[in-house]
Amino acid sequence: MLRVDLNCDMGEGFGAYKMGNDEDLLDYVTSANIACGFHAGDPAIMKKTVHMALEKNVGIGAHPGFNDVTGFGRRNIAVTPDEAYDLVVYQIGALNGFVRAAGERMQHVKPHGALYNMAAGDPQLAEAIAKAVYDVDPDLVLYGLSGSELIHAGLKRGLKTASEVFADRTYQRTGELTSRKEKNALIHEDDKAVAQVVRMIKEQKVKSVSGIDVDLQADTVCIHGDGPYALSFAKKIHEALTAEKIKLLKISK
Amino acid sequence: MLRVDLNCDMGEGFGAYKMGNDEDLLDYVTSANIACGFHAGDPAIMKKTVHMALEKNVGIGAHPGFNDVTGFGRRNIAVTPDEAYDLVVYQIGALNGFVRAAGERMQHVKPHGALYNMAAGDPQLAEAIAKAVYDVDPDLVLYGLSGSELIHAGLKRGLKTASEVFADRTYQRTGELTSRKEKNALIHEDDKAVAQVVRMIKEQKVKSVSGIDVDLQADTVCIHGDGPYALSFAKKIHEALTAEKIKLLKISK
Amino acid sequence: MLRVDLNCDMGEGFGAYKMGNDEDLLDYVTSANIACGFHAGDPAIMKKTVHMALEKNVGIGAHPGFNDVTGFGRRNIAVTPDEAYDLVVYQIGALNGFVRAAGERMQHVKPHGALYNMAAGDPQLAEAIAKAVYDVDPDLVLYGLSGSELIHAGLKRGLKTASEVFADRTYQRTGELTSRKEKNALIHEDDKAVAQVVRMIKEQKVKSVSGIDVDLQADTVCIHGDGPYALSFAKKIHEALTAEKIKLLKISK
Amino acid sequence: MLRVDLNCDMGEGFGAYKMGNDEDLLDYVTSANIACGFHAGDPAIMKKTVHMALEKNVGIGAHPGFNDVTGFGRRNIAVTPDEAYDLVVYQIGALNGFVRAAGERMQHVKPHGALYNMAAGDPQLAEAIAKAVYDVDPDLVLYGLSGSELIHAGLKRGLKTASEVFADRTYQRTGELTSRKEKNALIHEDDKAVAQVVRMIKEQKVKSVSGIDVDLQADTVCIHGDGPYALSFAKKIHEALTAEKIKLLKISK
Repeated sequence: MLRVDLNCDMGEGFGAYKMGNDEDLLDYVTSANIACGFHAGDPAIMKKTVHMALEKNVGIGAHPGFNDVTGFGRRNIAVTPDEAYDLVVYQIGALNGFVRAAGERMQHVKPHGALYNMAAGDPQLAEAIAKAVYDVDPDLVLYGLSGSELIHAGLKRGLKTASEVFADRTYQRTGELTSRKEKNALIHEDDKAVAQVVRMIKEQKVKSVSGIDVDLQADTVCIHGDGPYALSFAKKIHEALTAEKIKLLKISK
Repeated sequence: MLRVDLNCDMGEGFGAYKMGNDEDLLDYVTSANIACGFHAGDPAIMKKTVHMALEKNVGIGAHPGFNDVTGFGRRNIAVTPDEAYDLVVYQIGALNGFVRAAGERMQHVKPHGALYNMAAGDPQLAEAIAKAVYDVDPDLVLYGLSGSELIHAGLKRGLKTASEVFADRTYQRTGELTSRKEKNALIHEDDKAVAQVVRMIKEQKVKSVSGIDVDLQADTVCIHGDGPYALSFAKKIHEALTAEKIKLLKISK
Repeated sequence: MLRVDLNCDMGEGFGAYKMGNDEDLLDYVTSANIACGFHAGDPAIMKKTVHMALEKNVGIGAHPGFNDVTGFGRRNIAVTPDEAYDLVVYQIGALNGFVRAAGERMQHVKPHGALYNMAAGDPQLAEAIAKAVYDVDPDLVLYGLSGSELIHAGLKRGLKTASEVFADRTYQRTGELTSRKEKNALIHEDDKAVAQVVRMIKEQKVKSVSGIDVDLQADTVCIHGDGPYALSFAKKIHEALTAEKIKLLKISK
Repeated sequence: MLRVDLNCDMGEGFGAYKMGNDEDLLDYVTSANIACGFHAGDPAIMKKTVHMALEKNVGIGAHPGFNDVTGFGRRNIAVTPDEAYDLVVYQIGALNGFVRAAGERMQHVKPHGALYNMAAGDPQLAEAIAKAVYDVDPDLVLYGLSGSELIHAGLKRGLKTASEVFADRTYQRTGELTSRKEKNALIHEDDKAVAQVVRMIKEQKVKSVSGIDVDLQADTVCIHGDGPYALSFAKKIHEALTAEKIKLLKISK
């Protein structure tokens, strides 16, 4: 049986500020990456998002990022591996406070934004993050870009990992995502994006921008939660995968 | 056998900034209240302080405060009980990340500064904090001012509590501390402070500024970690109590 | 000739977060209170808002608040008068950087949220804020609640002041606003709100919730920028005042 | 007549945290770079430092840095040139609030830490910073590493610049400072450091680590304000330069 997890960043409001339509998106995804207060999110939003995810039986993950609300965690910050370790332990712990208070267990950890991207290509940073996750709880699943240093580091450390693929991003022949600075970074047609996802799950392959097929592993698909079309796209992916008899299951199931 | 816990605020540096002489103070106290990044402390300092405390077999507690590094958590902020609940869950969780990563368990929670003072007199705030502690881990010990609303709320919630007394602060006939705005708030002579502590432990009484004896409970004595004489005072208290055959034991022992 | 200023809080986004519809609102107001990065706003948003206001010939004011983005500056923080002075000087200065960089001059200062409310009733806080404004630039106009300590302090200090009234808030017989905790704090019917404003400008009076008329001074009317109806309400006020031959002019004109 | 400016970073405490011995150092330097609240400093410390510098007739400069107190502004953050522009305008403005409130004028701007280093080698970032300084006040002097992109950008923009040299750092044959990651980055012997400075001022040359002389311009010498020997070193430099008949004068004199 083919199966896949759909994950989405959630709880990314801050104080009086709203971001995303978490409540509705939770009907279409199977795992939620919840911001931990460093790049977005605050204690009140974290609590609320944990409760909403639990009600809809969605797997809960920490989504640690750089301490940079102004930059939404999307700006590279030259942290040392030790600093990255500390950031990740702190943020997993903070979210875990709310998960434990709800009587539940956390499922996974997915680094956010610039931390995710930097860890994809930097073995030392990846190793520090994997160690942080393992040290807090060796049963947590580490999410990372398929083929990335983060996935390698997780496996080496003895963690269960989830290799992530993107529906609406194009790939380089190296398996890396095309940089957002490039014109062809994004797939704007929903049908193309859906078809890319289906093929990634069924064949574990994607056609890169250079036309060459690249191998990857599609344990989990990233659904973007912001933007005006996030909800309709999540719904479309959900329906297309269901039609293809691909089971949508959270990683821990 | 008479026994008491000596607790001290620790890990109150921030980034490049130092505060207190934690390493040496850990030789004289039995429990450490570790700042959690909101009023002081950062992930690196939290990790280091947890490790130092464990090495010296000192009980580890979360020291949650208001999100106000500039004011060092000493300024009253008009939070709702829900906001206080969220602040406390978050900060216990964050510190617990480091405690779990070290393979250990947290012993207690002591609110910091203005949050501690406000919770001493406000039953709703006290109840919210007690619930936060209980929800994250019902085995945690809640530290609060002897006779305060925080202790009442903790007991009502079913938590183990530790009633705290102060060596170098004077008391009102109500059992409240004399406000720091008053001239006679502090006891400047070490001998008087030591004598006050010994009597509080032996007789569960303190003479208030109005001359009337007040009942209190002395499960734990607060040792201030900052100020130039913190270390010598901690040493003096430690020696005086030992000479009086009062066992110095962390709360959880 | 009757005249009045319409002011609105602006630039209250933060990083990736949006708040309010500043661009459209600028067509209907004559003065903009621009957040300075403490309760809302960041350098990029401040620059953009200054430029938008200048393009539409709207008076520019600093809108200093408490350093509390999570609470949007709406929670009382127990600052000393000195701390309030420093907060206000810093934030006026910061916004003034962008105003000077645009080759223009700042018109006014209006404290935000909890700082505004606390200063309305606390003479020492009010005096500190008035002194801060005066020290940075004695030509700045200080906005405060009509009849408040802030207006008194501004006049005493030698500043030009603008007494502010609210269209959609009810008043106590003391001239204070009804607390938002009370049910009848807000006027929900647009027509009532508009009628209240017109009378305040024409007769310098408002009917309090107890039915007694209260004297006030209506130099400037506060238009709320957030909420789904902000724009349509701003438009309605603008039209009603114009129909009544009340000139809408920024304070400095 | 030979002359030089001695500048030092100041006001780098934060809230309850102390850093450096500003009061005493002000007796030996001629210009103070005052932190503006982003990497260090807060409104109260800024005000106090401005007043202390004015009392000792020391030139006042803004010392803008990245918004990263935890990292003390020493970690590279991948800001865009626009973001750098905004950061610098905001911080100059904020400090200028206190300078104006004191009835004085700001003398200069020197970027801090990672922002200084990144601007030394990145022409676009340098250009954005120079434009920010110019836009706020074209009379401000821009401090930058001798020979750096920041100095070039300042000159191109029409600013007066001050080329900075370091007493206790070694130089590469390119004129760049040896990275702090290298063993030989620092000169630990005071006499060597003093001799290097004297030669830099007299001959506008320094011997690089490769033994080759490098040309540079020594308008201002950076004195480090933190570290246990900061004060004695400042005194030593001050005395040595005076003995060499080099006038110590702030840039604006």
